[in-house]
Amino acid sequence: MVKAIFFDVFGTVVDWRSGIANAFDQAFAKSGSDIKPLDLADAWRAEIASRLAENSGDTADGAEYTGLDAIHCDALEKVLADADLTHRVGSKEKAALEKSWEHLRPWPDSVPGLRSLRREYVIAPCNPASISMMTWLAKSAGLPWDLILGADIARRYPPAGSVYTRSAAAVGLAPGETMLVSAHNRDLDPARAAGLKTAFFSRPKEFGKAQTSDLAPADAWDVIAFDLLDLARQMEASLI
Amino acid sequence: MVKAIFFDVFGTVVDWRSGIANAFDQAFAKSGSDIKPLDLADAWRAEIASRLAENSGDTADGAEYTGLDAIHCDALEKVLADADLTHRVGSKEKAALEKSWEHLRPWPDSVPGLRSLRREYVIAPCNPASISMMTWLAKSAGLPWDLILGADIARRYPPAGSVYTRSAAAVGLAPGETMLVSAHNRDLDPARAAGLKTAFFSRPKEFGKAQTSDLAPADAWDVIAFDLLDLARQMEASLI
Repeated sequence: MVKAIFFDVFGTVVDWRSGIANAFDQAFAKSGSDIKPLDLADAWRAEIASRLAENSGDTADGAEYTGLDAIHCDALEKVLADADLTHRVGSKEKAALEKSWEHLRPWPDSVPGLRSLRREYVIAPCNPASISMMTWLAKSAGLPWDLILGADIARRYPPAGSVYTRSAAAVGLAPGETMLVSAHNRDLDPARAAGLKTAFFSRPKEFGKAQTSDLAPADAWDVIAFDLLDLARQMEASLI
Repeated sequence: MVKAIFFDVFGTVVDWRSGIANAFDQAFAKSGSDIKPLDLADAWRAEIASRLAENSGDTADGAEYTGLDAIHCDALEKVLADADLTHRVGSKEKAALEKSWEHLRPWPDSVPGLRSLRREYVIAPCNPASISMMTWLAKSAGLPWDLILGADIARRYPPAGSVYTRSAAAVGLAPGETMLVSAHNRDLDPARAAGLKTAFFSRPKEFGKAQTSDLAPADAWDVIAFDLLDLARQMEASLI
């Protein structure tokens, strides 16, 4: 029986792309309208993903762990430099951009779905984000987590299975008593390999109109839902 | 300005003594009524405190950290042995006793006070308890924490100041942007030394009718309240 439900957050629970694009818009509001905010958002996310990939597999056990806040800041420097924009952001604009991941908007079904699940399950983010990022994002977006788990608890990044097993252990559960929810098929493979139950729903607008990835489940995940509210309904009716 | 409020929990937020005494009552319900449940509760807590004192100061940085669940179990064995009761508890009764700290009742003002504070502040337990213990206690008692901090995050026990500074750092704050709330004067000294703001209220029934300790503040703490609800009122009106 599942007792705790873990969540990917960026994309699955909140709409990162339009929020980050909006933050770029604001950062350059005074210096001209020639930037492409969605492209910058995509570039930042891609740069973060690339750095996380370097940090995930071979990180020694905790010794070399760098939290996501620092990775976000370094990746932002690179993205601004690549776009020749470094000279156009002051320290105040840069600080606002760095904090922009803490002010993203939830998808419309996210908060009611989480509230419903929280009545029966322990719910927690379990993703690459730092405890700090997830705490302030939850406060801003009204995400009713029971606690914050994930990379900072395991001192490892997904796809390392220990992110999930150590998060389960932190709440006194076996991996099979927990479930990972993600709108990204690639998140669910390592979670399943680590013994967790898995749940998928698509976020077809995460990457905009041109999205081609993660429109459907790529495997027979334990629960396949329409959105987070539908997941809550299915969990209420199920015996998983 | 304080942005996050940390709490001692056992005694300050929940009534551990009557709950643990009740758990002993239930554990021995079938084997006779000759036990003294309040004495056993006091003995268990004293044994835990003594083991925590051994574990707090000189623990190497994370290397030798043992979580509170294991300490609770070992201390229970000792208390049962000392009272010549080991042979009278089966594995089921012992498991229920071990989990009894996750099913304590909040003081009447605790949940409304925390709900009120949560509107303006990040609120989290920050005490010797494990993440697991605090998660399931919160679920059982309805404590609306934003997240769980404390010993498991710092891998140290109070009175080590790093329990507080690392918990503050985990939510991206300087110690002075956080406050520790406790009904035990002795908790507040190391928190103040670590740079945190401090708040005290008395729990005059924590140790029963004969309580003589912590009936009043022992120092000029930043906030002195009547109870948790009064603390929430004072924080709403203050500029701390």
